Amino acid sequence: MAARIAGPEIERLVQMLSRLPGLGPRSARRAALHLIKKRDELLGPLGEALRVAHERIVTCATCGNIDTSDPCAICRDSRRDDSLLVVVETVSDLWALERAALLRARYHVLGGVLSPLDGVGPDDLNLAGLVERLRAGKLREVVIAVNATVDGQTTAHYIADLIAPFAVKTTRLAHGVPVGGELDFLDEGTLAAALERRTVF
Amino acid sequence: MAARIAGPEIERLVQMLSRLPGLGPRSARRAALHLIKKRDELLGPLGEALRVAHERIVTCATCGNIDTSDPCAICRDSRRDDSLLVVVETVSDLWALERAALLRARYHVLGGVLSPLDGVGPDDLNLAGLVERLRAGKLREVVIAVNATVDGQTTAHYIADLIAPFAVKTTRLAHGVPVGGELDFLDEGTLAAALERRTVF
Repeated sequence: MAARIAGPEIERLVQMLSRLPGLGPRSARRAALHLIKKRDELLGPLGEALRVAHERIVTCATCGNIDTSDPCAICRDSRRDDSLLVVVETVSDLWALERAALLRARYHVLGGVLSPLDGVGPDDLNLAGLVERLRAGKLREVVIAVNATVDGQTTAHYIADLIAPFAVKTTRLAHGVPVGGELDFLDEGTLAAALERRTVF
Repeated sequence: MAARIAGPEIERLVQMLSRLPGLGPRSARRAALHLIKKRDELLGPLGEALRVAHERIVTCATCGNIDTSDPCAICRDSRRDDSLLVVVETVSDLWALERAALLRARYHVLGGVLSPLDGVGPDDLNLAGLVERLRAGKLREVVIAVNATVDGQTTAHYIADLIAPFAVKTTRLAHGVPVGGELDFLDEGTLAAALERRTVF
């Protein structure tokens, strides 16, 4: 966008919006115009929501989740099982699992996966916190719920080795056909896993 | 997103972001997490950019452009040709034409097109302002630069009729093959127009 057409304020807004994932320069311009058009219903409230988020959101020192309190709502929730810990890569994975709402477990957010190519080593992940929680001795089972990618699986093995010295059951997510998925669109690895671990009808 | 996982502040941020064009619920969640991760580089500055925009952006009473001043930067620009007026549907069309940077013209933003099906009539567009500018008597040429859609072309004819009583040249954008476009992907209407108005090589 040309700074000479509109003021630097609009330019700046477009530039900031274009840094959101999923918005390029063109869609950032469209979003900016949409915001300006919906000045009081959207532009103002979004600005306010961002201000509040900036002021109040913190990372939970226990699990790595984000919330407006530390410890976070999940760590504070007394109805959850203290002996069941789900290890995830990111906060969005935590949210995804919570949407499934199957386990009343605690979480541990790694903040990424081991990736030698990207220079991410064990010290870059929230692993010290995990060991601390293992040492506390309350855990009965740790579910390693990292993504089924190469880096994710490397990380899973690394974590399994970390857990090994403790008397804790280590589990991982099942592989198989996604619910609602069509076989035709699945890769061979998934189909092989689904066949191998087939269950009685 | 479940309100019970994170605080209502995060919930609210995701909800607001999901109302931007181009962002659905999933990408809004991703955007919110990205913002929270880049707290000081992005979340804070975007909030500030929105606050400034909300406070300072106004619609130009002369042309309908948006800016932080009224009259806008284009209407104030003394190097532009007062006798050449480009009529566009929206501010984003104005921006698009300014990016081409061919004409040092003035603009007139209609704020939409005539669309009987959507209940948009002449009174819903910024046409009174256009007639006023025609009456002022400074104009030599009006370029009707509306989109090449059915509604756009209906609007173009309506505007041409408005201009007819004044001694002003009325022009429209040329039809033809887009620069860099492949013939194979163009509709017959465009190809017919490009053939009909072919020029000497």
